[in-house]
Amino acid sequence: MSFQKLDELGRKLESLEHAISILGADEATHMAVGGGEKRAEAMSNLAGMYHAQATAPQIADWIESAKSEDLDDDQRRAVGEFERSYVNATCLPTEFVQRRTAATMRSEQLWRDLRPKGDWDSFLPALEGVIALVREEAALRSAATGLAAYDALMDQYDPGNRTADIDTVFADLKSFLKDFVPTALSVQERRLAQHPRKPLHGPYPIEKQRELGLAAMRAVGFDFTHGSLAVSHHPFCGGVPTDVRMTTRYRTDEFLTSLMGVLHETGHALYEQGLPKQWSHWPLGKARGMGMHESQSLFVEMQLARSPEFWEFMLPLVHQHMGDQAIPGWDIADVLNEVNFVERGYIRVDADEVTYPLHVILRYELEQDLVSGKLEASQIPEAWDAKMTEYLGISTINDPKDGPMQDVHWPGGAFGYFPSYTLGAMIAAQLSAAMQKDLPDMRDQIRQGDFTAINQWRADKVWNEASRYTTPELITRATGEPLNADYFKAHLKARYGG
Amino acid sequence: MSFQKLDELGRKLESLEHAISILGADEATHMAVGGGEKRAEAMSNLAGMYHAQATAPQIADWIESAKSEDLDDDQRRAVGEFERSYVNATCLPTEFVQRRTAATMRSEQLWRDLRPKGDWDSFLPALEGVIALVREEAALRSAATGLAAYDALMDQYDPGNRTADIDTVFADLKSFLKDFVPTALSVQERRLAQHPRKPLHGPYPIEKQRELGLAAMRAVGFDFTHGSLAVSHHPFCGGVPTDVRMTTRYRTDEFLTSLMGVLHETGHALYEQGLPKQWSHWPLGKARGMGMHESQSLFVEMQLARSPEFWEFMLPLVHQHMGDQAIPGWDIADVLNEVNFVERGYIRVDADEVTYPLHVILRYELEQDLVSGKLEASQIPEAWDAKMTEYLGISTINDPKDGPMQDVHWPGGAFGYFPSYTLGAMIAAQLSAAMQKDLPDMRDQIRQGDFTAINQWRADKVWNEASRYTTPELITRATGEPLNADYFKAHLKARYGG
Repeated sequence: MSFQKLDELGRKLESLEHAISILGADEATHMAVGGGEKRAEAMSNLAGMYHAQATAPQIADWIESAKSEDLDDDQRRAVGEFERSYVNATCLPTEFVQRRTAATMRSEQLWRDLRPKGDWDSFLPALEGVIALVREEAALRSAATGLAAYDALMDQYDPGNRTADIDTVFADLKSFLKDFVPTALSVQERRLAQHPRKPLHGPYPIEKQRELGLAAMRAVGFDFTHGSLAVSHHPFCGGVPTDVRMTTRYRTDEFLTSLMGVLHETGHALYEQGLPKQWSHWPLGKARGMGMHESQSLFVEMQLARSPEFWEFMLPLVHQHMGDQAIPGWDIADVLNEVNFVERGYIRVDADEVTYPLHVILRYELEQDLVSGKLEASQIPEAWDAKMTEYLGISTINDPKDGPMQDVHWPGGAFGYFPSYTLGAMIAAQLSAAMQKDLPDMRDQIRQGDFTAINQWRADKVWNEASRYTTPELITRATGEPLNADYFKAHLKARYGG
Repeated sequence: MSFQKLDELGRKLESLEHAISILGADEATHMAVGGGEKRAEAMSNLAGMYHAQATAPQIADWIESAKSEDLDDDQRRAVGEFERSYVNATCLPTEFVQRRTAATMRSEQLWRDLRPKGDWDSFLPALEGVIALVREEAALRSAATGLAAYDALMDQYDPGNRTADIDTVFADLKSFLKDFVPTALSVQERRLAQHPRKPLHGPYPIEKQRELGLAAMRAVGFDFTHGSLAVSHHPFCGGVPTDVRMTTRYRTDEFLTSLMGVLHETGHALYEQGLPKQWSHWPLGKARGMGMHESQSLFVEMQLARSPEFWEFMLPLVHQHMGDQAIPGWDIADVLNEVNFVERGYIRVDADEVTYPLHVILRYELEQDLVSGKLEASQIPEAWDAKMTEYLGISTINDPKDGPMQDVHWPGGAFGYFPSYTLGAMIAAQLSAAMQKDLPDMRDQIRQGDFTAINQWRADKVWNEASRYTTPELITRATGEPLNADYFKAHLKARYGG
């Protein structure tokens, strides 16, 4: 039976993925510094074995013949997702993949060297090469999937996402934010005049911060029988669903950055831990995509952890773990002054939730033009600066380091990924609003630090659905309507609108 | 070129081994408790991929044709070792391997349940099954290698070891020890009467013990750019040569057990870290075998770390890391009273270096009879008791838990392994004596905690030789003579003979 063959292949692929994921997490947390070269060789060879097994020609026959077997609903969807994943894995010729991998590795390395110097001119030829390859890739993916070029790129990260839908939603959000950012800033200014930010009284010992982070993870539902928290330079949530490897990093002069980071990653972790175990070795059993994943981290970070209700139970935990003198005299408003501080800035990854979407929409718009050929790499600095000035009122024309050179995505050839960040923020807000209807006392539960019903709702609507549906289908099923910007706008107005 | 094909295959196998080794170390140190099932599935699938790739039929052709290629000395040896490894991997039919794996897994599981109860009768049928399979395996390996049955088993662990040689060496050692154990005990009694053992003043905080262990590792030459120390229930030295994962465990009422364990594992680690990097993906580049590996750990533990010279530099380190009140008033003789305490006991793993070989020789003798069919499993308790009584003067007839049920080796089907432990102790002593000739001020260097020349000698004579030679050849090349018991006997006499 062909379904059975796919099932067995899935188990082998899952084992290779398991190894690659754990080795990846281990590399960032526990590997000896001199172990990197052999580790890279091992990871690359394992990835090669994975690719060879995942793209074997007979799989196409198994998929075709499995379709006519007597399958239940889930099994049919599972074969469909297997096919989607197989098409994605096989639609690029090996020769092209090698060419692209070599070019993006060189370009990323060059970017690491040149970004600190802000040397755009030296970087430009490499980026031009990458963009030429991205256009080639988009054409190949478009041919294999029947999607438009940029849609074919996005579809890798969030299956079902189409510019036709996202353009509308982003246009709505952009026009809202252009007015709302100044509003939020002046509301904040008035509030801070009455209630100024308080200084922090560090140092905050790492061991205590770790205990606080663990307590926060436990509170929001992290399952420590299937995961752990370690330290790495760049925080991440990796590993496998049965053993989620989360990391954070600590600074001793303040503790809120690490704590909020831990809560963000816990959102990712809960999704992984909540995926349906019986499908773990099928594409169907994986998290739906990047936008949905980000919605789960941002749900915890933005919808829960930056709310006043959350801090009713969290503030005592801070006192308990960090000591009474850690933030002497602080009340919830003082914490919110810190964690919800809004600021126009150059850097996407440092942006708050109000300004962040404008950073993303800027990139989304430029990417589309770069892929279609309307824009060339050499024109990026001016186009970037024009949009930064229009959307956020700040200019980066003399500062490519903090302008178009700030992200690794383009040097790495990852076009079509940026929208996921803001889609995630919008999905989180829309989920939260839908949840509120089903759980009228949700805000009270947050106050009490009781996330049982909230997590059960998320498990039913998102986690356990895994990849049964496309991203847009999943959103509609969970919230009763297609993705739109209304709930996110309402969320921002409620929090920052005064 | 076939040599090149073997080289490429070697890189793939090394990557799978890398994954399996790191996943194995991770499992014992950092894995979430609920991650075990998927981890076991992943390890088993990776092992299956390794086996499939390592036993592919075309490899036999590559080996044959590589032999007639224009190769240098090392390359010829490398092909020879590849062949040895290929024959070992392919000489058992798949059907047999599956049958044996299933039987030994069941038997090990049963042993874990029944050993605490000392329920020999319930365990016997499983052990009988395992022994039947071991006889079958010995016959298969004998047919493939042309070796005698028990030699074929031993050859897996220490290539070149033959009962014809070991019988003689062990007979010599046994007859010496039967007299020497009582001597050492009465010498010890007289010494302790004059200089009694001192009590320890715990608790010893784990963090301080860890610092002391790290200092000891650093002192004897562990390279922390290629390895690390963690905690696990059963201490081990795992990982890969570029990233050696060592573990220990701590108790807070004393610190010497952990420290000596760390030094033992550091001996293993130095061997791995010292293997020739350019051959790491060939069988030639691996450590020679179990006896040689144990010789490296026992060299550090027994030849170095339990000597008075070693404690001249180590005692100040203890004071530095554990505090001046950790062992108040202790001098070197007090430490040696502890670490060189001799005792007749039931349990091999708890035995000191004087009585340990008798535990091993007992098993070696019984194993040969079990494999040849001279002895049946049902006769083990009486045979065991007779030898324990003869060699160590203690009876285990009413205590199978601490008698023939104490080790995992037989339940797991690992026959031919036990001799390696005592061969390791003898090799370590013989290496030490040879080294002393080349480095006349070796004892002074130990006093100063300077292991540079000692480690260089070991690197030249053992580590860098890797698997270029059989175990007996390697011993002769390193020490100028075949393995014999004289140096080990002299070592015991010098340390315990009064």
